[in-house]
Amino acid sequence: MSQRLAGKRVLITQCRAFMGPVLGEVFAEQGADVILDEAPLVDPSRPAEMVAAAGRIDVLVANLAVPAPRTPATQVSDEEWRLVFAHLVDPLPRLARAVLPQMLARRSGKIVVMGSASALRGRKNVSTYSAARGAQVAWVRNVGTEVAPDNVQVNLIAQNFVENPTYYPPELIARPDFQERLKADVPIGRLATAREDAMFAVFLASDECNFLVGQSFPFSGGWVT
Amino acid sequence: MSQRLAGKRVLITQCRAFMGPVLGEVFAEQGADVILDEAPLVDPSRPAEMVAAAGRIDVLVANLAVPAPRTPATQVSDEEWRLVFAHLVDPLPRLARAVLPQMLARRSGKIVVMGSASALRGRKNVSTYSAARGAQVAWVRNVGTEVAPDNVQVNLIAQNFVENPTYYPPELIARPDFQERLKADVPIGRLATAREDAMFAVFLASDECNFLVGQSFPFSGGWVT
Amino acid sequence: MSQRLAGKRVLITQCRAFMGPVLGEVFAEQGADVILDEAPLVDPSRPAEMVAAAGRIDVLVANLAVPAPRTPATQVSDEEWRLVFAHLVDPLPRLARAVLPQMLARRSGKIVVMGSASALRGRKNVSTYSAARGAQVAWVRNVGTEVAPDNVQVNLIAQNFVENPTYYPPELIARPDFQERLKADVPIGRLATAREDAMFAVFLASDECNFLVGQSFPFSGGWVT
Amino acid sequence: MSQRLAGKRVLITQCRAFMGPVLGEVFAEQGADVILDEAPLVDPSRPAEMVAAAGRIDVLVANLAVPAPRTPATQVSDEEWRLVFAHLVDPLPRLARAVLPQMLARRSGKIVVMGSASALRGRKNVSTYSAARGAQVAWVRNVGTEVAPDNVQVNLIAQNFVENPTYYPPELIARPDFQERLKADVPIGRLATAREDAMFAVFLASDECNFLVGQSFPFSGGWVT
Repeated sequence: MSQRLAGKRVLITQCRAFMGPVLGEVFAEQGADVILDEAPLVDPSRPAEMVAAAGRIDVLVANLAVPAPRTPATQVSDEEWRLVFAHLVDPLPRLARAVLPQMLARRSGKIVVMGSASALRGRKNVSTYSAARGAQVAWVRNVGTEVAPDNVQVNLIAQNFVENPTYYPPELIARPDFQERLKADVPIGRLATAREDAMFAVFLASDECNFLVGQSFPFSGGWVT
Repeated sequence: MSQRLAGKRVLITQCRAFMGPVLGEVFAEQGADVILDEAPLVDPSRPAEMVAAAGRIDVLVANLAVPAPRTPATQVSDEEWRLVFAHLVDPLPRLARAVLPQMLARRSGKIVVMGSASALRGRKNVSTYSAARGAQVAWVRNVGTEVAPDNVQVNLIAQNFVENPTYYPPELIARPDFQERLKADVPIGRLATAREDAMFAVFLASDECNFLVGQSFPFSGGWVT
Repeated sequence: MSQRLAGKRVLITQCRAFMGPVLGEVFAEQGADVILDEAPLVDPSRPAEMVAAAGRIDVLVANLAVPAPRTPATQVSDEEWRLVFAHLVDPLPRLARAVLPQMLARRSGKIVVMGSASALRGRKNVSTYSAARGAQVAWVRNVGTEVAPDNVQVNLIAQNFVENPTYYPPELIARPDFQERLKADVPIGRLATAREDAMFAVFLASDECNFLVGQSFPFSGGWVT
Repeated sequence: MSQRLAGKRVLITQCRAFMGPVLGEVFAEQGADVILDEAPLVDPSRPAEMVAAAGRIDVLVANLAVPAPRTPATQVSDEEWRLVFAHLVDPLPRLARAVLPQMLARRSGKIVVMGSASALRGRKNVSTYSAARGAQVAWVRNVGTEVAPDNVQVNLIAQNFVENPTYYPPELIARPDFQERLKADVPIGRLATAREDAMFAVFLASDECNFLVGQSFPFSGGWVT
């Protein structure tokens, strides 16, 4: 059996949400020493504490999630905006402060941000969520460029239409109108399984992949190409 | 003389910074009734008050600016992050709440965001600023898509290498090393004049341009294509 | 009345097809001295002859068109491929050889390619056409970058959903299923008029616009953003 | 040892050029049954013959290459243009006709095109090559979208700065000015090894990766992000 992450210490944030559960499982299967952190990263001091407790981290999986509000742009409240940015965006510099110094010192390390294709294609009524995911994409591009010469790779999976408890709960998937929309809107005509997505994260987290930096990879069955 | 914005009521925010001064001048030359607002839009109640005072607004120029910190990703403080997002990002939903309802009701109106190509290409030590500008790009894409059927157009100029007092003060432009870098990094080998940039904003604000929606246009002399 | 192209000698290729008719009309209204060339540019020697006959050319509008075949990828013939590339792609280097030297010598000139958003978003059964339009986009990016330091600007309009006799004949527009698809697929929910598109070309061809180089601008009502 | 392509019949075209040698080696290590085809695919009947001789093909690696001419846009000859398109572009529909039918019939198969980041970022004097590589990108986007519902995945690696005999011969790599340019132009500051690139192709060719379709992945050490 392949063990592509053997010996890697991998920290997965917000491990019960979004892609957290499957990532924990699949990364462990691939031989990683997985460290799981549960809480949403809204507490400003949490990233530093989490990393201090974890010690060496070879791969940080920034799995940040919050339900995506469906709100017309004319009705987006400051509270909605703040809540979404507090979960998805504000943790980024804190994670960088916490985990990049050890990676730069060792000249080795990876950050994989579990992001969204909503950052890359327009839809109605999701401006808050998309703006926050767009900040992630630009941040990854810049930080990835900045730390590339030190052999640290920062990348993002810009996913959509992937099974996960936060954005595609089973009751949504079961609805016939959802399945119809899927066939109409997504070239591939189906959701990705959570494991398919996790295998892309494995690739980005592994030593196979040291030349990709600062990139956001659409993972959406052709919805964004 | 051409009067391509004749009869248009145009509100320009943060009018003393970034592209504000030239935009006020050029839009007035083009026949617009220009309403200038001075303060950075950090006060949450300011957008609503500003729009209430202005009455009918045909074009909102969201000219949002703050000096771009040069900070390695490992040293970006929460204060830096908050300051930049408070100036560039948090005003967006407030502006939408304030100005979109009248535009949607009239089925006519435009928002032009003066943004940055930093959202679209990676560089070192500007992750905070670029992330904030990236949030603008994704927000414009979504809101622009959302209000397009109601004949309201929201677009963004993703500029770089344009003369302006906030990002390219005269003392920087005068430095020989800056001029050399310009020749090396920017295909066109020079800065845009502020008026060149303003004429692009005129185009996007005019009735000539009712079919472009949700887009971010690189305006950077070929630095981003 | 505005005369934004006063004194400009503008050569428009394949003037009876695609955007040719409206471009000729609108450019003349804007004061240009318009030179029209009729034939599709499939004859290898035609671009040189055309330019030699025209003399000074300030703006070349490379309006290249051929009906877009609807063919599954498994059935695309060499003949289809060759025909489409002969019309849309092979003329490019010939046009460059013919017209760029005088522009470079004067340090002034523009090429506007009337291209397609098919180059930027995937659809079924139009692989030949899209590949050819994709070659145009990459060519513009490279040549635009190359000649930018000499004050020559090469750009492309990546359009779709614009009224024109080649791709949207009246009988297609009149079909109810077409109108329904338009509402479903295109955020703005309508076709652009030919004049709206022509005004974008006017902008790119005018002296207002000397800082945009090597770019392909989606013009598709939000279909590509 | 991992055998991620066990049982896969993989056809690699133009196997002595570009990424061919390393792909043959690495795919075999991963358990693939590798079929190598030597000649550049300029003969129109070759793709069909090659596929007929090969029988079942699970993965086609369209490794198409030709030296990239360095020619100013004003001097590109029809011969240069034709030669480059004959090698890089014209084989595409022939390969599709030859290999897609069996993949569609089995509802399983992959095409990986070894392309170039030159399609995605402008440089001087490589307009011919870049235009051809741009045609590949748009073709992959369209064909990938078209065959996605039938569980066939078509993707492209848009690489640059990867060691290979065609574009980075050892004598180039050895030059100090080349190494300096690499540090200046490429964020990661080095070339990829051929094996790093091959491992990305392995990922795209493997059963791990059934949800990515129609995409062109920059693989350029941050030169394109």
